[in-house]
Amino acid sequence: MTQNIVDKLYKKMDEKQTPLMIGLDPNLSLFPESILQDAVRRYGGTRIAAAQAIKNFNIAVIDATADLVPIYKPQSAYYEQYGSEGISALENTIAYAKSKGALICLDAKRNDIDSTSAAYAEAHLGKVLLPDGTFIPSADNVDFMTVNGYLGSDGIKPFVEVANREGKGIFVLAKTSNKSSGELQDLLIKGDQPSETFLELDQPVYIRMAKLINGWGQNLGENNYSNVGAVVGATYPEEAKKLREMLPNTLFLMPGYGAQGAKAEILVNGFDQQGRGAVVNSSRGITYAFSDKKFKEKYPDLAKPEKFAEAARQATIDSIRDINFALKNAGKLPLSWNRI
Amino acid sequence: MTQNIVDKLYKKMDEKQTPLMIGLDPNLSLFPESILQDAVRRYGGTRIAAAQAIKNFNIAVIDATADLVPIYKPQSAYYEQYGSEGISALENTIAYAKSKGALICLDAKRNDIDSTSAAYAEAHLGKVLLPDGTFIPSADNVDFMTVNGYLGSDGIKPFVEVANREGKGIFVLAKTSNKSSGELQDLLIKGDQPSETFLELDQPVYIRMAKLINGWGQNLGENNYSNVGAVVGATYPEEAKKLREMLPNTLFLMPGYGAQGAKAEILVNGFDQQGRGAVVNSSRGITYAFSDKKFKEKYPDLAKPEKFAEAARQATIDSIRDINFALKNAGKLPLSWNRI
Repeated sequence: MTQNIVDKLYKKMDEKQTPLMIGLDPNLSLFPESILQDAVRRYGGTRIAAAQAIKNFNIAVIDATADLVPIYKPQSAYYEQYGSEGISALENTIAYAKSKGALICLDAKRNDIDSTSAAYAEAHLGKVLLPDGTFIPSADNVDFMTVNGYLGSDGIKPFVEVANREGKGIFVLAKTSNKSSGELQDLLIKGDQPSETFLELDQPVYIRMAKLINGWGQNLGENNYSNVGAVVGATYPEEAKKLREMLPNTLFLMPGYGAQGAKAEILVNGFDQQGRGAVVNSSRGITYAFSDKKFKEKYPDLAKPEKFAEAARQATIDSIRDINFALKNAGKLPLSWNRI
Repeated sequence: MTQNIVDKLYKKMDEKQTPLMIGLDPNLSLFPESILQDAVRRYGGTRIAAAQAIKNFNIAVIDATADLVPIYKPQSAYYEQYGSEGISALENTIAYAKSKGALICLDAKRNDIDSTSAAYAEAHLGKVLLPDGTFIPSADNVDFMTVNGYLGSDGIKPFVEVANREGKGIFVLAKTSNKSSGELQDLLIKGDQPSETFLELDQPVYIRMAKLINGWGQNLGENNYSNVGAVVGATYPEEAKKLREMLPNTLFLMPGYGAQGAKAEILVNGFDQQGRGAVVNSSRGITYAFSDKKFKEKYPDLAKPEKFAEAARQATIDSIRDINFALKNAGKLPLSWNRI
């Protein structure tokens, strides 16, 4: 029996005493000149140069933060921009972070019909067939990936099956962190339509999705959390609270902390009373801290492009303290954590 | 002003006298031995060999069918299975199909929050920044891509903006072709919630999504069709009919014909009275025709792995006839088409 990936994540969280996940969203327009110039010097104005710059930037950020956090979340879009070269940089980044002991969640929000979902699941969590008839682990082979459940069960179950087989996990979008997430996700579904319980009051789409997620996630670890998690925006604290009560066995991936504006005081709603149940992502607020206005005021010495890695480390330390302090205030800081 | 991509597609459809799109979903377990062995001989049991097999298979299918169809739809999942090597095979496939005059729809169902959706849009439809400060067209640079609207307007508008700027198009998932699509998409939204019209009767999620799609697609071409289309499963004819009436300016990408079981007689519901308004995808039914039971009975001579390309051509010809015959019976065959 493979170990439940959430148990593994909780163990790493305890080691680092933080639920913080660092998002790796490489955006060349925000990169320090030195990284860009070095890549151009070696590879000219090419996609290979872009991939090289991304790789060097990410490695520097990982080197500066890997002792501090349990998990990284590369966002696929930023790597796909450079085609096969970009995906190669993604693979290098993931391999490097793994070599430092970190877990990886690929933020890809994949979704499709059954056979194609199975192909996506194998592509990122599982094994793939070679022309000689053998199977090998997929190239990135991450621990978690994000998926979108708009297609219903037969689009998600292939991911669950591969995750169960491989000791991996998924996060299904429930309530996303963006401003317009309510356009569809908050609309009220009429009661008395097929669901887990026979008759129900009107409830929003995201609650209905949460119930589907709960149904898909029946493989619990020692901590009583399932390897089928939910994406719940830290920017929506009331919704997070409701979902936390509804889904005692579902781990939340909470984006929105930092650059997207969600404060630590509100994201604690996604945690259970033992301080479990959520992993909190920050991307731009960490990796581009050197160019953040508030960070600059607080740390003028680190507010220089060439100090981007040191700045990322400082922003990570500050974020960990900030979140743990909020957890403590809410009476939710795990007993063994004292890093405030 | 860039040409509307739907006008361009309609022109190609008129040239070929068909709305058929061929899906390129390379699955090594279905490939002819000869293709696999050739790749192993040259590259051993490696991802490069897998990519080589995919490329050779696709090129043979494209060579056998490019004079017959206006557009191909590679499904990203199958290429992602082989990491950067797989994406390289995808890029080669797309470049080859373009060189034969075909349009390309990348089936990727991407979705994310605003800034990340913009990155996805540029990655596949637009331009990307290099480290030397210049912008170049993205590596695959397709004509259309599929996207998922669960995140609402700010997740879709970046795709629309890039599509408008670049003369490209998108298809947003409305009612998908899979069995469980109704789990979420068919649930009734309560009336009197914010929408285009103030008070509305209860309506399913997919209708609500269709209205959002209509709102996003205000850039019409000469044919009065928008570059923001909808994915509408051919397997749901009643829903397709309703959507066709509701969305007179929205092009439908209709998956489900062939291997997924939708018959030509029912998918005509997605077309308007002039025989416009839909592009019909067939993937496995074309590319793996040589191993299809019914095809084998009809064409025993072509039911051999080494004849996969000829079989794909025959299946394409038969599908075109089948769809055009159904369009004719429904009084919807475009006047200039006589290929039945």
